[in-house]
Amino acid sequence: MENLGYYNGKIAPIEEMLVPMNDRVCYFGDGVYEATMVNNHKIFALQDHIDRFFNSAGLVQIQLPFTKEELADTLNSLVKQVDSPEQMLYWQATRGTAPRNHVFPKGVQANLWVTIKPMKVKDQGKKLKLTTAEDTRFLHCNIKTLNLMINCRAANRAEELGCDESVFHRGDIVTECAHSNISIIKDGVFITHPTDHYILPGITRKHIIEICKEHNIPVDETPFTLEQLMDADEVLVSSSTQLCRSADTIEGKPVGGRAPELVKLIQDAYMDKYLKETK
Amino acid sequence: MENLGYYNGKIAPIEEMLVPMNDRVCYFGDGVYEATMVNNHKIFALQDHIDRFFNSAGLVQIQLPFTKEELADTLNSLVKQVDSPEQMLYWQATRGTAPRNHVFPKGVQANLWVTIKPMKVKDQGKKLKLTTAEDTRFLHCNIKTLNLMINCRAANRAEELGCDESVFHRGDIVTECAHSNISIIKDGVFITHPTDHYILPGITRKHIIEICKEHNIPVDETPFTLEQLMDADEVLVSSSTQLCRSADTIEGKPVGGRAPELVKLIQDAYMDKYLKETK
Repeated sequence: MENLGYYNGKIAPIEEMLVPMNDRVCYFGDGVYEATMVNNHKIFALQDHIDRFFNSAGLVQIQLPFTKEELADTLNSLVKQVDSPEQMLYWQATRGTAPRNHVFPKGVQANLWVTIKPMKVKDQGKKLKLTTAEDTRFLHCNIKTLNLMINCRAANRAEELGCDESVFHRGDIVTECAHSNISIIKDGVFITHPTDHYILPGITRKHIIEICKEHNIPVDETPFTLEQLMDADEVLVSSSTQLCRSADTIEGKPVGGRAPELVKLIQDAYMDKYLKETK
Repeated sequence: MENLGYYNGKIAPIEEMLVPMNDRVCYFGDGVYEATMVNNHKIFALQDHIDRFFNSAGLVQIQLPFTKEELADTLNSLVKQVDSPEQMLYWQATRGTAPRNHVFPKGVQANLWVTIKPMKVKDQGKKLKLTTAEDTRFLHCNIKTLNLMINCRAANRAEELGCDESVFHRGDIVTECAHSNISIIKDGVFITHPTDHYILPGITRKHIIEICKEHNIPVDETPFTLEQLMDADEVLVSSSTQLCRSADTIEGKPVGGRAPELVKLIQDAYMDKYLKETK
């Protein structure tokens, strides 16, 4: 198949897939999700994503009707059904199908959705242009939910401005981006927001921290300010589908570019990891 | 029909209705909604709801592909197709159907969804039992969006505790409930949170304020605290489907009950208005 949509066992091209109107996602955005890249029909960092998925589901009290192993088997089998060996794999669980009611339905199983599309890894050397937006989202950004209207609005505003991503800040404190984490390098130290309820605990972010530690780059998980962002030696934006890219402008002003050797070290080590694990 | 689901012109019983997986509501909860009661197949406060619906859509940049008059015609026609003369009418618009991307799709029309179910007006004399929850939602509560996971969680927690509704508060300040507004009466004054980004501008709330003014009950649109809530002469919970009901306990502690004549005056005047407009 060119692309694949899956809903509770039913499979068809995504654009032909239909789902029940009473799936709670339709009224409440009531679900959690994951996304990652696939190379050679092999899913990158699958265990990390499955672990976070079960954690998100637990935090919103969605009981998943399958084990982590069963989900891995389903996903590993589905990625083989799409022709392209390079893919973006996305999946979500919604709380179930029931008449609209804010109260959780009883005796109803969560629904599993999967989409798989051909996608190549982005050119890691291409620099990003960023804009900024006040972070007015809820205080549960650690949970990867489907309540994403504000993220969409920020991403759309970035696009309108000719930018690639929008950097959220609460007052002066930089949190994360509309669909990525953000970190800086300053005086040889990798600085990134701690994993609290203001940011998603990014899996790429976690891997980059591991790479930094392996290469004796000090890591400081402390909130940083907009001023520190503008004054950083490098600005790094990371996500599971974009991997790790650096930025060269924010609101049209030049940023970073003062520690290219560290950026290259991290990017090369990450690409090595990606290619090795999906060989 | 016993109940009705509608999606862009297609009609079937709600539980049989299917919608495209790529409707943006499925990935982002990307839409806005309204709900109101229907009596004698006549929609209560339709113009108010349509006005708020267009306002919500505008605030999230969803361009509705119909006029207010066309929407009213569609809704007025649909409520006649459901057997029961007493109904709950619900509708929503989602940003459109397109491959998943945070950025808004171009050249795609918003989708119109409607559901209609038999429902009687709740007994206005039955007192509500309330619980409380810290308000951790986003700062766009004035927009009636489909990003409702936190509202659902609070409503579910209330149900688990044997309560009817959950009162949100930001620190000490009471904002609104999981799916209602909340107001108090103290020393003859009707006190309610102002309509800023912390609460939905409730239509029932607006009507109650009008009734208060007609009956020379002073209205004070000023935030009140949890302490004022517990110490109020009466606690009123209002929504378009519940109308106006008073509470007698919060977290199991007795509240209100000290100005029953004012509660009755407001409830009777509101029921008069409801019955007159849907005669």
